Amino acid sequence: MKLYHFGRAPNARRARVFSAEKAIDLELIEVDLGSRAQLNPDYAHKNVMAEVPALELDDGTLVTESNAICRYLEGIQPEPALFGTTPLEQAQIAMWDRRVELHGFLAVTEGFRNGNAFFKDRALTGPIDYPQIPQLAERGRKRFAAFLDLLETRLGESDYLAGPTFSIADITAAITCDFARVIKMGPPFEGHPKLQAWFERIMSRPSMSA
Amino acid sequence: MKLYHFGRAPNARRARVFSAEKAIDLELIEVDLGSRAQLNPDYAHKNVMAEVPALELDDGTLVTESNAICRYLEGIQPEPALFGTTPLEQAQIAMWDRRVELHGFLAVTEGFRNGNAFFKDRALTGPIDYPQIPQLAERGRKRFAAFLDLLETRLGESDYLAGPTFSIADITAAITCDFARVIKMGPPFEGHPKLQAWFERIMSRPSMSA
Repeated sequence: MKLYHFGRAPNARRARVFSAEKAIDLELIEVDLGSRAQLNPDYAHKNVMAEVPALELDDGTLVTESNAICRYLEGIQPEPALFGTTPLEQAQIAMWDRRVELHGFLAVTEGFRNGNAFFKDRALTGPIDYPQIPQLAERGRKRFAAFLDLLETRLGESDYLAGPTFSIADITAAITCDFARVIKMGPPFEGHPKLQAWFERIMSRPSMSA
Repeated sequence: MKLYHFGRAPNARRARVFSAEKAIDLELIEVDLGSRAQLNPDYAHKNVMAEVPALELDDGTLVTESNAICRYLEGIQPEPALFGTTPLEQAQIAMWDRRVELHGFLAVTEGFRNGNAFFKDRALTGPIDYPQIPQLAERGRKRFAAFLDLLETRLGESDYLAGPTFSIADITAAITCDFARVIKMGPPFEGHPKLQAWFERIMSRPSMSA
């Protein structure tokens, strides 16, 4: 299987880390987002949304969207279970993973893409250009600050984000927190000791360097 | 089990429709978003994110986030399978469901909450007030127009959104398309005949009136 990715792109990192946790080897093919290679016509048939990652199966079938790629890898290699096993575990992991995506990851990208000259007219990923909105750069930072407080509270009641065991929600959250460097709100997380301890624990896993 | 919901709230509708497809009875408890009851302190312990829906299990455990509630219901009542069965089906359904959430549903809410006086200082759901950004009202409409084109193309190659069988992606997408009435881009979908035919087919399912 081939994974179209870019080293610094956080959603691509999510797929790489997930596959490392599963000990699944993927052939990595770089799509250079720095030169906007994701917008080239020869990538459009890999992913009409012009984003990385994209997983190409050996028969040519394509799966895009990072959580869907992880879901596929979980299906072909169920152990260790990173989406949960019981209905309640599965639900709690889905709940935290979605909270991280909607309130953490989208907050960082809102702050980053609306406040950095590289993304002029590229305020959203995808094939269509949208102009930056300066107020969103500020809003993204406020939202991310609230997200860090949410994690601090949660990690005071639970060893891992979605419960007593490591899950995809920890992968998504740790990558989001690390990515927050791009809005200068990344590690260390001062004033958030439980979050900081959890972050160091997750980042020390060998998979995180994938 | 109890479902905290609101009749017109689209994410709550998603949980209701899903439970109807599964023939699972839920006790419905209304949280009146019209009077901002989701922000009352007595609801905060149901969902710290101050949103509906929230599912309360018989032992008091709470599951929030509509897709996580659906995931729980799929776990306790696997048939009919609405998240897919094989790894590839599961991945393709997750892929389309996420595309609908990120590019369709968020586009409608962006347009709605930034362009309607009721949401002054409430441009985002959740416990924190954020001011409206008028440019987002316009951007949401542009994004939703692109989303309708994406669906039209996809429904020219597939009977249902994620493949040959009905799935949660169809539920999420049909509710999103119907909800687009709030930005006056809802049905009918002129110039999108395949989308329109699919929409009528999905809306005719008994579950859609749940």
